[in-house]
Amino acid sequence: MNTELLTKGTLAKEAAYKLVSVTTETKNKALEAIATALTVKADEIISANNADIENARKNGIREAMIDRLTLTKERIEDIAEGIRQVIALDDPIGEVVKSWTRPNGLEINQRRVPMGVIAIIYEARPNVTVDAAALCLKTSNACILRGGSEAINSNKAIMKIMQEAAYMSGIPEGTLNIIEDTSRETATELMKMNGYIDLLIPRGGKGLIKSVVENATVPVVETAAGNCHVYVDVDADIDMALKIVLNAKVQRPSVCNAAETLLVDRRIADKFIPAVFTALKAHNVEIRGDEASAAFDESIVKADEEDYYTEYNDYIMAVKIVDGIDEAIEHINKYNTKHSEAIVTENAENAERFLNEVDAAAVYVNASTRFTDGFEFGFGAEIGISTQKMHARGPMGLESLTSIKYTIIGNGQIRG
Amino acid sequence: MNTELLTKGTLAKEAAYKLVSVTTETKNKALEAIATALTVKADEIISANNADIENARKNGIREAMIDRLTLTKERIEDIAEGIRQVIALDDPIGEVVKSWTRPNGLEINQRRVPMGVIAIIYEARPNVTVDAAALCLKTSNACILRGGSEAINSNKAIMKIMQEAAYMSGIPEGTLNIIEDTSRETATELMKMNGYIDLLIPRGGKGLIKSVVENATVPVVETAAGNCHVYVDVDADIDMALKIVLNAKVQRPSVCNAAETLLVDRRIADKFIPAVFTALKAHNVEIRGDEASAAFDESIVKADEEDYYTEYNDYIMAVKIVDGIDEAIEHINKYNTKHSEAIVTENAENAERFLNEVDAAAVYVNASTRFTDGFEFGFGAEIGISTQKMHARGPMGLESLTSIKYTIIGNGQIRG
Repeated sequence: MNTELLTKGTLAKEAAYKLVSVTTETKNKALEAIATALTVKADEIISANNADIENARKNGIREAMIDRLTLTKERIEDIAEGIRQVIALDDPIGEVVKSWTRPNGLEINQRRVPMGVIAIIYEARPNVTVDAAALCLKTSNACILRGGSEAINSNKAIMKIMQEAAYMSGIPEGTLNIIEDTSRETATELMKMNGYIDLLIPRGGKGLIKSVVENATVPVVETAAGNCHVYVDVDADIDMALKIVLNAKVQRPSVCNAAETLLVDRRIADKFIPAVFTALKAHNVEIRGDEASAAFDESIVKADEEDYYTEYNDYIMAVKIVDGIDEAIEHINKYNTKHSEAIVTENAENAERFLNEVDAAAVYVNASTRFTDGFEFGFGAEIGISTQKMHARGPMGLESLTSIKYTIIGNGQIRG
Repeated sequence: MNTELLTKGTLAKEAAYKLVSVTTETKNKALEAIATALTVKADEIISANNADIENARKNGIREAMIDRLTLTKERIEDIAEGIRQVIALDDPIGEVVKSWTRPNGLEINQRRVPMGVIAIIYEARPNVTVDAAALCLKTSNACILRGGSEAINSNKAIMKIMQEAAYMSGIPEGTLNIIEDTSRETATELMKMNGYIDLLIPRGGKGLIKSVVENATVPVVETAAGNCHVYVDVDADIDMALKIVLNAKVQRPSVCNAAETLLVDRRIADKFIPAVFTALKAHNVEIRGDEASAAFDESIVKADEEDYYTEYNDYIMAVKIVDGIDEAIEHINKYNTKHSEAIVTENAENAERFLNEVDAAAVYVNASTRFTDGFEFGFGAEIGISTQKMHARGPMGLESLTSIKYTIIGNGQIRG
């Protein structure tokens, strides 16, 4: 193994053993110290960040990415404010989830415990460095962060400030780590650090997620592509359906919980399609329709099979007219990415069938798919949105960074 | 992808979508039909099993393995009885785990849902074919089973009987599958069926687990090597400690929750070591001790570093004298496999430190490690014992074969 990985992996593992004895009070004090230090030392961070931005421009990185990379005093204050929100959350560690006594007198407790060491691989967004570290620290986990190479100077500056603040506040050394070697090979090695890493979370685009799923041998939570649908049922309230479709598509098209395909029951198409096409076009949405919906408007582009598989993340929406709820559910389960799906209907039976039969992390009746989010769900934090079914599904709050342990109290019981 | 995998993967996936609408009553009826059919058609199974046994003998398979492979009328009746125990368990599917309303009026429910398609790779134990299928069916999951090649005739016969009984009872066709091509290549391909398999559970020895962890790209629960310890604290009740050490070591040495290493506080060694050595020797246990414990008995073998890492699964026990609870915890966290660990002590503070600081799925005070088991925990079933921290930890009952889904009810909410 690469020396940096081995050194930091070992430090993190040792720190994780010590972290189980750190109190909530100490963790919150350390988080407060981090928030303060980041604000006080904002100039240090910004100067490192400037070096990253300069390199990015030299390398012809596109502006949208440079914007995500850029840190200002204001943005750093927002980041510090994010830490204070984490401080305010309840500490899930130590909670006794369940407790029962067996006929032989053994008392079994299921306790909530830290994962141990959590690795997070992400792109050139230095705010994630703070965010991920804060959530791991709040849940008594050591972390190994590996951010995008374009942000390496910012990340190193931020990490140094966080480490100093945390370790002076009583957090075990080795708890916070950033991988400075941002080569692809080292990232791949990191994904195979069994025995050091208890959970690996990728945060980023399709390519990153795919690489992690294919290469990792440590446990992974797969996050986030979102090919989401809104289905307008025969019994929909037309005005509500219009509002929801528009919101799901255009309120923020670049995010994973935005809708990509609109499905409409054939029996309501005459009433709904002209209205929704007008509204979408008024918001500059390019419509890609099947034969039946294109019949309503010659100007729209024809959708092909590939369109229904595509997460546009853009002002584009595929449309399909379906023969009722059966075809809608079948279409969604075939093309979706198990993220967020919505039905608009006043029919309770159809609503329940949709909730039950659609396979997705979050299924909505009469609401926009845009609510799939740790903050909107009331978790107070979000480390990502899981699209797998194992361990965590949907918005991942603090609890998804924890495991359980059985503690069993006896008075000499042996097995017969 | 191999045609058999593609065909069965597709069938299983389609069945999984239909299974969400199958009632508990139908599932239990199907399980009862399977139990009855297996007993009624025991001769068919035994005749297929005889072919497997004959092949195994020809191939020089060792007797212990042939014993595990062998089915008799009695064993088939026991297997059927196992299914009836699964019928008696509560159906976890559909349970609303949590429910809350957001300030904007959205009602969020966390429902317990099936995983979807579960794959299980195991060795030449035909009873696992029934056991795994029954637990998956009870939790509304489709399954793809891949058993050891030595049991293929038995497994095919059993699967045919189970399929007939289940599908006649209203279970969707495609729910139960066994992979008939038992080549290694096909097993490796199975581990990479992303988009078809939601959870893969390996059940078997070290080599199988290692291969799955290294090759799988689908989500995996790693089960069960057990390098378990008993630590006899300075404040231990000597008689209780003797009973627990003996039980943990000799009651069934071949299983994962048996103890492999005994740690003894130096301050109690004079009193405890001679007694425990006498008792272990009386049960034909070979003792491998460190310098300090060997000083009590010249005849014992010296332990080396490798011994402390070894899961003997045999009448062998490593022994080490330690300087109190700190060294005990440090030793355990270094050498253990995160399975089951026990302290014997009357000291409440040491007990709590051990429970908190030892990193394992199950941590015991004053009881044998042998209780780590789904049945002993009262789960009524066990699909394996997880030694990872993600998704499921320790004995895995029905709940570990489920996921959650958020269902959200609105009245037109959109995101601002």
